[in-house]
Amino acid sequence: MPELRRDPIIGRWVIIATERSKRPTDFEKEEEQADFKHCPFCPGNESKTPPEILAYRTNGSKPNETGWWVRVVPNKYPALQIEGALNRTGEGMYDKMNGIGAHEVIIESPDHQKNLADLDLKHIEEILWAYRDRIVDLKKDSRFEYILIFKNHGFAAGASLLHSHSQLIATPIIPKRVNEEVAGSKKYYDYKERCVYCDMIKQEIASKVRLISENESHIAIAPFAARFPFETWIMPKRHAASFEDIQKKEISQLSGILKDILLRMDKVLVKPAYNFILHNSPLNMSNLPYYHWHIEIIPKLTRVAGFEWGTGFHINPTLPEDATKYLREAEIDFKL
Amino acid sequence: MPELRRDPIIGRWVIIATERSKRPTDFEKEEEQADFKHCPFCPGNESKTPPEILAYRTNGSKPNETGWWVRVVPNKYPALQIEGALNRTGEGMYDKMNGIGAHEVIIESPDHQKNLADLDLKHIEEILWAYRDRIVDLKKDSRFEYILIFKNHGFAAGASLLHSHSQLIATPIIPKRVNEEVAGSKKYYDYKERCVYCDMIKQEIASKVRLISENESHIAIAPFAARFPFETWIMPKRHAASFEDIQKKEISQLSGILKDILLRMDKVLVKPAYNFILHNSPLNMSNLPYYHWHIEIIPKLTRVAGFEWGTGFHINPTLPEDATKYLREAEIDFKL
Repeated sequence: MPELRRDPIIGRWVIIATERSKRPTDFEKEEEQADFKHCPFCPGNESKTPPEILAYRTNGSKPNETGWWVRVVPNKYPALQIEGALNRTGEGMYDKMNGIGAHEVIIESPDHQKNLADLDLKHIEEILWAYRDRIVDLKKDSRFEYILIFKNHGFAAGASLLHSHSQLIATPIIPKRVNEEVAGSKKYYDYKERCVYCDMIKQEIASKVRLISENESHIAIAPFAARFPFETWIMPKRHAASFEDIQKKEISQLSGILKDILLRMDKVLVKPAYNFILHNSPLNMSNLPYYHWHIEIIPKLTRVAGFEWGTGFHINPTLPEDATKYLREAEIDFKL
Repeated sequence: MPELRRDPIIGRWVIIATERSKRPTDFEKEEEQADFKHCPFCPGNESKTPPEILAYRTNGSKPNETGWWVRVVPNKYPALQIEGALNRTGEGMYDKMNGIGAHEVIIESPDHQKNLADLDLKHIEEILWAYRDRIVDLKKDSRFEYILIFKNHGFAAGASLLHSHSQLIATPIIPKRVNEEVAGSKKYYDYKERCVYCDMIKQEIASKVRLISENESHIAIAPFAARFPFETWIMPKRHAASFEDIQKKEISQLSGILKDILLRMDKVLVKPAYNFILHNSPLNMSNLPYYHWHIEIIPKLTRVAGFEWGTGFHINPTLPEDATKYLREAEIDFKL
């Protein structure tokens, strides 16, 4: 059973994933899985994953067989376990609880070779619908406080399988960073009576210096205080705290701007590894007037330096305004 | 001039290091510098660094020539710049200031080949004295709020030069993570009237399950809620908020336990890349009864996954108690 442990100084919870436990010699570089025959995410290999939770598939095709275009399965090596109770307990001065949660994999396409950026718009929409369907379903489980959707693309960004996929983790606590965002945006709201993200959107549209792409419902910007070179945020223009409240028309617009940004990054940074994180409001806080969901995309270009881990202090070697120019001026074979 | 920019949501400051500015194509892997003739940290190449700030050298030898055993120089590509005023200013809703600070390199030994773990005890002491001397000197500059001392060892941990060195960054603001530690430990103190670190030390000595090494004045433990596999903290047993108040005898004890831990990691993890961060109290807060300086050592074994950046949530695949056992039982050619 995985364990959640709390740092007694700063209160940060950590998942100690004993099921994945590694011996000192197990940390050598795993090789990327490029072999179709053995790829557990390829059609025909459905039995190599735990039974599917959700699949969009052709009429008449059977669960856990071919015929799907998006498929969601439990992670075979989950960081958190779905069965059980939290059992909060102490160990002397320390606090811990059982590592209860959900850990799922969204297999984005049957095609082993295609990256998210290469999929057509309709297909990307389907992936976004799968995200939403899973959030709506897991929201019913009262043990969960937060659902995290993210994607590690490429070995350098933490992916262990090449076949394009995203992940979902439902947690019994609100992650520290999410709490900070919620508290920080509330503080701004208490003072200004406006959503800080909405204000950012207004300023970025007016000044244009960090505006990478824009369509009817979304914008993509380089954040003013970007931690990483070419870090990009996609935000809905209309105030919306929860991703799952998205409208059908907005999903198709989001699909477009996401593809647009990934293609621009592929062009400018020559197909970089990247991480993509959906920042959403906590499950039990609905319609927050001060929080605004958004997607953060971080290409993996720099190595992690020691003091960033130690201090939360980041050094970004690229001006966000310069990154904006490169991305905006990239010639891509796609029109928003 | 580098710039400090503040994230308007969570208030985190980021250094935008324009002096190091990189174009999209500049992010390919730099090669490790293994060539003595061109290594700017090797004796004989003193003119390849900016003029030295401090050096421990043989009597009669001249500054910026050979004859030193520990040498401190300004970083040639500083993340922050020493001259100028902060000039806090706004840009619409955003806040920024000039990137004023100090960025120094502590060249740990004239020997290009030796790692910190391989240096003899007396030599490691000298490095620790150099850390202290630089803190004491920079403390006089009223523009600085914090001094960060850290070491990136090995390419994977962010080092760009092979020759053993540590770094120092003095900042005009207190880094976010340091603020969290100070605030968190104060909260504990307000409730318990005890230092949280002192309580940890007592519990770890009593339970022994996470105790890796111990001498008269220091202990090394695997923290209960370790973020990373084999993460290790070295702490002074006697309550002490500021590293620079260390006693002469304690420096020699610290040198011993540091060498001990680095040799154990080299043995168990086969000479891993690692980061080492000195967590010290902010400059203008002296004698805090609730803060306790310590060193965090993080071997670089896992890749950074997307949602750790995005959420501050960590998954550690190794039980701290297991890591302790491996490190404690390692046979090393050194006696504490």
